[in-house]
Amino acid sequence: MQKLSLIGIGTGDPGHVTRAGVTAMRSVECLLIPEKGEGKDDLAQLRRSLMAELAPDVPVVPFSMPVRDTELPYHDGVEVWHDAIAEAWVAALPRPVSHVGLLVWGDPSLYDSTLRIAARLSPMPAIEVVPGITALQALTAAFTVTLNDVNAPVLITTGRQLRDHGWPADAARVAVMLDGECSFQKLDPAGVTIWWGAYLGLPNQLLRQGPLADVAADIIALRAEARASHGWIMDTYLLERA
Amino acid sequence: MQKLSLIGIGTGDPGHVTRAGVTAMRSVECLLIPEKGEGKDDLAQLRRSLMAELAPDVPVVPFSMPVRDTELPYHDGVEVWHDAIAEAWVAALPRPVSHVGLLVWGDPSLYDSTLRIAARLSPMPAIEVVPGITALQALTAAFTVTLNDVNAPVLITTGRQLRDHGWPADAARVAVMLDGECSFQKLDPAGVTIWWGAYLGLPNQLLRQGPLADVAADIIALRAEARASHGWIMDTYLLERA
Repeated sequence: MQKLSLIGIGTGDPGHVTRAGVTAMRSVECLLIPEKGEGKDDLAQLRRSLMAELAPDVPVVPFSMPVRDTELPYHDGVEVWHDAIAEAWVAALPRPVSHVGLLVWGDPSLYDSTLRIAARLSPMPAIEVVPGITALQALTAAFTVTLNDVNAPVLITTGRQLRDHGWPADAARVAVMLDGECSFQKLDPAGVTIWWGAYLGLPNQLLRQGPLADVAADIIALRAEARASHGWIMDTYLLERA
Repeated sequence: MQKLSLIGIGTGDPGHVTRAGVTAMRSVECLLIPEKGEGKDDLAQLRRSLMAELAPDVPVVPFSMPVRDTELPYHDGVEVWHDAIAEAWVAALPRPVSHVGLLVWGDPSLYDSTLRIAARLSPMPAIEVVPGITALQALTAAFTVTLNDVNAPVLITTGRQLRDHGWPADAARVAVMLDGECSFQKLDPAGVTIWWGAYLGLPNQLLRQGPLADVAADIIALRAEARASHGWIMDTYLLERA
């Protein structure tokens, strides 16, 4: 493998794909696609629809997505898992190919591991990153709000960080990703506003916003119900503290 | 005006435009375009090229971009300026139009004022935001690096904030935008790595990275030279402290 293209495709809205993304999808010899393990059949279906529409002539090479060992400590488990994914990519390629593509939800730079997995390949191919629309951008677009206030900083963090460390020092706005546990409920809600979205960019997109004290319970219930009914959920939110 | 579409178009690379961006550009009755004041003729030319290629049949309505009064205190000056821009939009429209578009560099959610200016319109039209690729995404893609470390937060801030407040509390990674003064030179460079880019996505893109102590002087000189030769510069950078 001489070149690997990591193609950000946004959050599921086919309109999120950039012109460079379409060009890159058509430029590769094959696209590596996870076969199982996502537990998100409609996402897998979306990916297949995008490829059928935008790059119908490019062969698809499925690979079996390894499962992360949740009995190991978090960081150790992630390291072992990433090794296994890199091996699965290589094992799936039926013959030597020089230019391989991977479709990445969102943008390969933001809370995505594909670059770190690719760094395990040996010999290391040239890496191309095609930026894509992130869930945060889909969230702010849906609410027609800005991520930052005028000249003010915004912290992007994870649910785990918010749970473990509380409201970050010196940040008036906090954007939270990778939160499976509605970690906003651990915060003192006084003066906090939330803009919350799930399935952003998809037809079943859910949006709630308001004072955290007023809408937190509604979001927790809605999230549990949606997750049960779809079998999976991806959500993200922006918080502002007055 | 019943509807205003704010269309993120990325940082100048025509490949940054999304499929939804193209659709939105073609859906409006006219596109409002700043006529003067950017002082960035090649950016204006890029915008015209994009429109000619992607939406050649959509009429262009130029408006005179007001100049910010730099003798006022910063926030006051910005408020007065935004009022004037909203007035300039309305004044430029030759007749009642129901659906107007504006092309926004980067993404309308990140260090961009278009949403705040639009909020001054009266009566308020429906606002559509089409997300676009930001300079930060163009930066991380160019370097094939991630914005965040595993499960770790990243703070997005401005040059002014970095100058006034130093390295933010609790942040191992900081992304800096709107910095006209190479504010990284105010930091203790020990243990700090920088990924710096200017004219990101454009053919004359400049990239430098390395330990801040080793590359800061080179970046400052390169930036001054490039600014003098082009007449303008837009740059952004990511910092990591070990």
